[in-house]
Amino acid sequence: MNREQLRELMEAVQGGNISPDAACDRLKNLPFEDLGFAKVDHHRSVRTGMPEVIYSKGKTADQVAGIFASLAASGVNVLATRATQAQFEAVLRVEERAVFEETAGCITLQQAPSAPRHGRVAIVCAGTSDLPVAEEARVTAELMGNEVDMVVDVGVAGLHRLLSQHARLQQAAAVIVCAGMEGALPSVVGGLVGVPVIAVPTSVGYGAAFGGVAALLGMLNSCSPNVTVVNIDNGFGAAYVATLMNRVL
Amino acid sequence: MNREQLRELMEAVQGGNISPDAACDRLKNLPFEDLGFAKVDHHRSVRTGMPEVIYSKGKTADQVAGIFASLAASGVNVLATRATQAQFEAVLRVEERAVFEETAGCITLQQAPSAPRHGRVAIVCAGTSDLPVAEEARVTAELMGNEVDMVVDVGVAGLHRLLSQHARLQQAAAVIVCAGMEGALPSVVGGLVGVPVIAVPTSVGYGAAFGGVAALLGMLNSCSPNVTVVNIDNGFGAAYVATLMNRVL
Amino acid sequence: MNREQLRELMEAVQGGNISPDAACDRLKNLPFEDLGFAKVDHHRSVRTGMPEVIYSKGKTADQVAGIFASLAASGVNVLATRATQAQFEAVLRVEERAVFEETAGCITLQQAPSAPRHGRVAIVCAGTSDLPVAEEARVTAELMGNEVDMVVDVGVAGLHRLLSQHARLQQAAAVIVCAGMEGALPSVVGGLVGVPVIAVPTSVGYGAAFGGVAALLGMLNSCSPNVTVVNIDNGFGAAYVATLMNRVL
Amino acid sequence: MNREQLRELMEAVQGGNISPDAACDRLKNLPFEDLGFAKVDHHRSVRTGMPEVIYSKGKTADQVAGIFASLAASGVNVLATRATQAQFEAVLRVEERAVFEETAGCITLQQAPSAPRHGRVAIVCAGTSDLPVAEEARVTAELMGNEVDMVVDVGVAGLHRLLSQHARLQQAAAVIVCAGMEGALPSVVGGLVGVPVIAVPTSVGYGAAFGGVAALLGMLNSCSPNVTVVNIDNGFGAAYVATLMNRVL
Amino acid sequence: MNREQLRELMEAVQGGNISPDAACDRLKNLPFEDLGFAKVDHHRSVRTGMPEVIYSKGKTADQVAGIFASLAASGVNVLATRATQAQFEAVLRVEERAVFEETAGCITLQQAPSAPRHGRVAIVCAGTSDLPVAEEARVTAELMGNEVDMVVDVGVAGLHRLLSQHARLQQAAAVIVCAGMEGALPSVVGGLVGVPVIAVPTSVGYGAAFGGVAALLGMLNSCSPNVTVVNIDNGFGAAYVATLMNRVL
Amino acid sequence: MNREQLRELMEAVQGGNISPDAACDRLKNLPFEDLGFAKVDHHRSVRTGMPEVIYSKGKTADQVAGIFASLAASGVNVLATRATQAQFEAVLRVEERAVFEETAGCITLQQAPSAPRHGRVAIVCAGTSDLPVAEEARVTAELMGNEVDMVVDVGVAGLHRLLSQHARLQQAAAVIVCAGMEGALPSVVGGLVGVPVIAVPTSVGYGAAFGGVAALLGMLNSCSPNVTVVNIDNGFGAAYVATLMNRVL
Amino acid sequence: MNREQLRELMEAVQGGNISPDAACDRLKNLPFEDLGFAKVDHHRSVRTGMPEVIYSKGKTADQVAGIFASLAASGVNVLATRATQAQFEAVLRVEERAVFEETAGCITLQQAPSAPRHGRVAIVCAGTSDLPVAEEARVTAELMGNEVDMVVDVGVAGLHRLLSQHARLQQAAAVIVCAGMEGALPSVVGGLVGVPVIAVPTSVGYGAAFGGVAALLGMLNSCSPNVTVVNIDNGFGAAYVATLMNRVL
Amino acid sequence: MNREQLRELMEAVQGGNISPDAACDRLKNLPFEDLGFAKVDHHRSVRTGMPEVIYSKGKTADQVAGIFASLAASGVNVLATRATQAQFEAVLRVEERAVFEETAGCITLQQAPSAPRHGRVAIVCAGTSDLPVAEEARVTAELMGNEVDMVVDVGVAGLHRLLSQHARLQQAAAVIVCAGMEGALPSVVGGLVGVPVIAVPTSVGYGAAFGGVAALLGMLNSCSPNVTVVNIDNGFGAAYVATLMNRVL
Repeated sequence: MNREQLRELMEAVQGGNISPDAACDRLKNLPFEDLGFAKVDHHRSVRTGMPEVIYSKGKTADQVAGIFASLAASGVNVLATRATQAQFEAVLRVEERAVFEETAGCITLQQAPSAPRHGRVAIVCAGTSDLPVAEEARVTAELMGNEVDMVVDVGVAGLHRLLSQHARLQQAAAVIVCAGMEGALPSVVGGLVGVPVIAVPTSVGYGAAFGGVAALLGMLNSCSPNVTVVNIDNGFGAAYVATLMNRVL
Repeated sequence: MNREQLRELMEAVQGGNISPDAACDRLKNLPFEDLGFAKVDHHRSVRTGMPEVIYSKGKTADQVAGIFASLAASGVNVLATRATQAQFEAVLRVEERAVFEETAGCITLQQAPSAPRHGRVAIVCAGTSDLPVAEEARVTAELMGNEVDMVVDVGVAGLHRLLSQHARLQQAAAVIVCAGMEGALPSVVGGLVGVPVIAVPTSVGYGAAFGGVAALLGMLNSCSPNVTVVNIDNGFGAAYVATLMNRVL
Repeated sequence: MNREQLRELMEAVQGGNISPDAACDRLKNLPFEDLGFAKVDHHRSVRTGMPEVIYSKGKTADQVAGIFASLAASGVNVLATRATQAQFEAVLRVEERAVFEETAGCITLQQAPSAPRHGRVAIVCAGTSDLPVAEEARVTAELMGNEVDMVVDVGVAGLHRLLSQHARLQQAAAVIVCAGMEGALPSVVGGLVGVPVIAVPTSVGYGAAFGGVAALLGMLNSCSPNVTVVNIDNGFGAAYVATLMNRVL
Repeated sequence: MNREQLRELMEAVQGGNISPDAACDRLKNLPFEDLGFAKVDHHRSVRTGMPEVIYSKGKTADQVAGIFASLAASGVNVLATRATQAQFEAVLRVEERAVFEETAGCITLQQAPSAPRHGRVAIVCAGTSDLPVAEEARVTAELMGNEVDMVVDVGVAGLHRLLSQHARLQQAAAVIVCAGMEGALPSVVGGLVGVPVIAVPTSVGYGAAFGGVAALLGMLNSCSPNVTVVNIDNGFGAAYVATLMNRVL
Repeated sequence: MNREQLRELMEAVQGGNISPDAACDRLKNLPFEDLGFAKVDHHRSVRTGMPEVIYSKGKTADQVAGIFASLAASGVNVLATRATQAQFEAVLRVEERAVFEETAGCITLQQAPSAPRHGRVAIVCAGTSDLPVAEEARVTAELMGNEVDMVVDVGVAGLHRLLSQHARLQQAAAVIVCAGMEGALPSVVGGLVGVPVIAVPTSVGYGAAFGGVAALLGMLNSCSPNVTVVNIDNGFGAAYVATLMNRVL
Repeated sequence: MNREQLRELMEAVQGGNISPDAACDRLKNLPFEDLGFAKVDHHRSVRTGMPEVIYSKGKTADQVAGIFASLAASGVNVLATRATQAQFEAVLRVEERAVFEETAGCITLQQAPSAPRHGRVAIVCAGTSDLPVAEEARVTAELMGNEVDMVVDVGVAGLHRLLSQHARLQQAAAVIVCAGMEGALPSVVGGLVGVPVIAVPTSVGYGAAFGGVAALLGMLNSCSPNVTVVNIDNGFGAAYVATLMNRVL
Repeated sequence: MNREQLRELMEAVQGGNISPDAACDRLKNLPFEDLGFAKVDHHRSVRTGMPEVIYSKGKTADQVAGIFASLAASGVNVLATRATQAQFEAVLRVEERAVFEETAGCITLQQAPSAPRHGRVAIVCAGTSDLPVAEEARVTAELMGNEVDMVVDVGVAGLHRLLSQHARLQQAAAVIVCAGMEGALPSVVGGLVGVPVIAVPTSVGYGAAFGGVAALLGMLNSCSPNVTVVNIDNGFGAAYVATLMNRVL
Repeated sequence: MNREQLRELMEAVQGGNISPDAACDRLKNLPFEDLGFAKVDHHRSVRTGMPEVIYSKGKTADQVAGIFASLAASGVNVLATRATQAQFEAVLRVEERAVFEETAGCITLQQAPSAPRHGRVAIVCAGTSDLPVAEEARVTAELMGNEVDMVVDVGVAGLHRLLSQHARLQQAAAVIVCAGMEGALPSVVGGLVGVPVIAVPTSVGYGAAFGGVAALLGMLNSCSPNVTVVNIDNGFGAAYVATLMNRVL
């Protein structure tokens, strides 16, 4: 029941065409009927500049292209994560403005203005193996209107490299730290900054890394109280939350 | 907003004291306001004879007694699971009709009539160690109005004992099977009956039983397609679902 | 020993050709001899319209085709789950009436009448990724004679979509909920309906989803007492149990 | 080397008492010497109103009291988490202004002014079993200067209770959700609000809840992208991060 | 239906009091009725000297005593495993011949003659911590009529101690090896003997021993092909199987 | 030092060419020198008819062929497990008498006489999916001189099929049971026979079968005391142990 | 067979009292007889100053005292780990020179001179919760003759504290790092020193620390290549290995 | 800030061009600026002969070649681990002196002199399956200047083979033991030598080997106190630590 139908019902009550009791009966189940709620959501994404997101894994190239084109037509920014070259080529055939970020595995379309942001989002990772996850975070964050500061190659076994970037980290409104193996980097970064640190365990490592489990456990047990954690390899989710923190309140 | 308030609003629209548009505005957020919905739920439990349930673990004796008395006053059947002797004594001080089922660890109050049931619920377990879980299921099922048929001491290592109860099992509307250790009993029972088998892994066993995990995995992988599973030691949940299956449709 | 042989033995006793004691000896081991029991089972599947089921994974195309043809010849409905296009083509060469449900990965043959059913089975899932499991459930349920109501794209992060389907869910005799990732959907659906909810964890997700383990654990710990659980991705098993619940008692 | 010593060295260079080269040598190892850095940290905690925190578990009552008194003397707000009645009594003997929050297991001393905060922090939990964790979050958040809005008894199996609190949730600057069992609440709340949701798995549950692991996995796999996760039962950490989000930027 | 009842039925057929067809009907369900089968089992245990076994854990002292007395009265050897001093005292009041093996945690009654055995059973363990499990095996094996050779304090970190017992090991008909920690002893012993080695992981160890899991996995992966494994701490089961191997065929 | 060298040393002592003390020095380290011990092992395998075994997985076809030819030349029976068609073809080029058992994945050469065996080894499995493991056990057992009785398609969900084979099972000297999924079959078989049951968990199943872990745990927790367990899919190991049990003592 | 017996055999050969062949026979099994090898081991422990070690957990006070006295009588240094006050009091009654290190849970007796050591062993830990493990390492290392440098309260969330101790760490011959929670400290320390780092995960932490598993996995996946790992809480083992590294070669 | 810049600042202080206070301000943040520290690290690797290491997995052939050439140009020894034939061919195009160790999966360049070493490093493994890991350790150790003694085919199920190598093991300065399956070899070797044993679990095995987890747990629980552990398959790390132990102090 949308606003129009609700108004017609009220007018019917007003006009005496339907009794208050009968109207009550029809309204009783309203909480579980469709009040045009989805449309409100849609409006919000247009207004905030948050892109609509397609998780491409497990979808055919044609499916990704179809959804991408449909979203693009609505005027919002569009983001397809975990995408392949083949999926990008299908998208390109229906939306020529689409861009492929290869390392990140992301297809993007920037067409709507971004909401104003408070500051920068820093994205930190230890090495080149973590880059795909860090890049997914960067592409997401930029499409959501954040200025991003990438800090790469600062593993905890060579602290001087991390410490030399201290000033940059302190200027961020939120810090995303991607790390595999022992996942110690978020704890160390957490001690250097006064803003929330969003830790992303990556599936980088071998043997007892167990596909990111070692890093995940390390981050959940961080001795830095400003660390929160998202799922393994979830660069997108980390950027989404960082964007919410980087609002102009 | 309850029914009365809703009716007043409709009458105000009818009487022209409030415009259809203004009524729309007030109703727009209705899905997320309190429509007296909880009361409807409450009505349903009174009507169906389903008892209100208190999970007693981690609550003080006084807390259990307080909730018990409050529910008892509303006229419904009351069930407190995972209860201790001390909690029962506190309940007894506020509700003298309460009964304690010691092996099941349940406090009950039967005061409302039961909904009519289709048939019997069979509860099967291998040995005396599984009895507390089986008894929790029995007490729950009986309080919900089911006739219960207990079949105990029928482990798979001595098939003749189980097979000798074949006829009883075939007369049930639903079968609950509680088993620890390797959890094989539901598969075997599943092959003997044509109704759903609700498998309850128990935390009985030692070593690689891992507190019921071995039994749980065994049941989830059952080769009998009529087996579904509830949480470890969850006799209450099994009886609840069996009751839903034992309806007069 | 089948009925004929048993009757001959009885007649021999009656005729005095064999002593009661000798007959006792022959009958003593009867419980573990073949009483034509398998045939009884067979009769039941013909009578109830339950299809005979082939688990195709790990079988060659020829093996699947051979078993399929053999079952088809006996007049029952036939279902092959987890089947590939290649397996279907082999089946088609021996049974031209066979149908391939591609998303479900099922080959079916409908030739026997179905038992009468009480109501509908609702199958609910959050997104397109869960569809193969939901479709396996749908194909199975329909072949077993159920009317099925599919409710797709109703994830818990957008409650309005689920709530708008409330009425449909309440009309089902049993509800199957397929969900991956955090597996929260069965708990929410369980709170909306008064019938059993059969939860199917799917292997959809990444990272700490651990191939369906996160969803499985979530479902086993559901706070809705009407939820039971089957194995990860086991759409067939869920439909089998739902069918048993949807009987005309 | 503190500021005074550094200044003396510079004056010695200026006065020609030490050569530039020799000063370089002394400064070369400076990065790894104590530059009064800890004092800076200390200043920050005084300035921001963040309390100094004592993790009381595994400490004797005297140890907790000693550290508490020492911190109290420095003028900051003091918080001791996971504390017992016995530890509180020891603290009371040395600092009579200390307060014991029993459900939260926290000893607090509020003596310093709080930094100004942007808005409210909402803390949501499903039932009374999660209250100790939710209370640890509340006490921490309030001591850090946040206005807190507690929303209790809103489990996902009875959505109407949660939906009726929708407006309150939407007014928060950050939402903390504590949940045990299947841990589905953060996903549902995440879909209702546009701010970050900090999910705290609790060790509430039994059987396959595995002391909070089921809830933890559920939260890490949330389908709501605004959800991040902290360690099991870590109400303190959640409040700490929520406070950082509730800054006046 | 026992032998007497079966005989009466046959005599009724012989006497013409019941028709062959009616007898067939009554016999049809025989496989699932009680044919006095349990008694046959009972006979076997009397004949073979295998003791009847009571698993005492989780039973009250009175329950253990009651079952013990009942079995003792039937003339068989009796074994109660995982028993406490209190349970023994209760047993002693009803059966004064009972003996308590304290380290093994076993109560025994030897009153029936043993079946003849082929050779000796060797029981090997690394240190005093494994002794309770090894002793449970020894007591069980001896009560079942085996001559037992205990070889203690032969850990793999000091091979000379094990090698000096080589001859004794080679004279056994079966070898039981109890080991905790890394569980390496069965592999080494397996290479020294030509008979089956029954490996019993013990819950001895700390940290990553995980209550016997490390030892269990080590034993399952043994590079000696003559090693089989029983449950953690299951000294009874190991002795039971060793006894079956030590038969006079 | 081999027998010849040892004898020469003794003769030198006898002849006075070397002093007793000097001989002691040479012999002191003997325990850790090569006493031709490996050859003794070799002799034993020739004598007992136990085949030499090659684990083919991870080896090149040429490596398998080389080792196979070398062992074949020594006159013993040869067995290569986990072998592929390609490896077999390489073996065939160097040893034309080699035979490939395709389902078992075994290459065999039977050329030495077998030791006399006491009885038969029964190998039981539930379905065709478990056949590769059961076949590896059969090929191994036969090459080691056992008569084998295969009992296939006797899953616990259809007990009548298993019970109809009761007599065959009771005639075996040892029973190997291969089972995947819930792994319940060894417990049921264990209750039907009086000999040791060697349980082989197979990696058959999906979802919560976890590659054989569910079956493994089920078997370790068997309620039948005559069950021991080997590694997942280890048909070879089970046959090896069964052979040792089937000796003529 | 000890040296004396061996010499007698050689003299018998020399004197012609036993033939070379007969001597060969007796010597054939020598590798597996007792060559006085244990005594050699014993000599080594006296010579190197390595204490004999008693693992006290699970032993009675009398057992610990008995073994302690026996070892003390042989003149070596003695160490009993995981000891209680009650065990110490029993030891004191038989060896009055024994000393109890309460935090470490160690009883020691220093009576033999230590082997000369190359340098110092540094023991690092993050906080007071890790102290029992660090102290076990310290007591062990000192009793083995090492000079120990304890560096406490240097968690990775406050790097300045660790960096200020850089010089001390660089002067160690080996570094032991005890850490719970995320176990990140060894990686950071590993990057600061050029000697081996022995990482000891401690069971400190809660929730997803899983009793030290998170720290253990973190350490095994360390990005510093000079890190090796011992069991959870195994301070003794770490000190033992550090001592071997601190040898004068 | 490098040495030159630091010196210029000091000269400015000396010359009165900058006040001591202003210099203090500039130096205050020095600990977190780049002091040319990385260059010091670089110097150290040149000086010690430790090769620079490239982890090749997940890198393109061109990336490996580029980094290899860059390191080679700086004059150090270069090691690329986990490399493929294709990566080697790319390296060869830019550095013709590069060598490919196929079994080890390592590309090496030896051009700098090695630091003097104290003794030999022994590398022990049970069979050919563990060879790739053992070879990675050998290649690493040799490139770091160690003499290596490989001891292969000495599994614990045939102790005589290991014992015959006892003397070689005792001559090593450090022993690396690579083992899969049950991982028992390090414990046995640990008892035979007086130097540290570095245990490397390998992912060799099947079923319950769980990709090296069984071996890893076995090694962590070793009863030999001189055993430490590195990650699964981490031959490089083991060799790195062994090299540090084999220093001339």
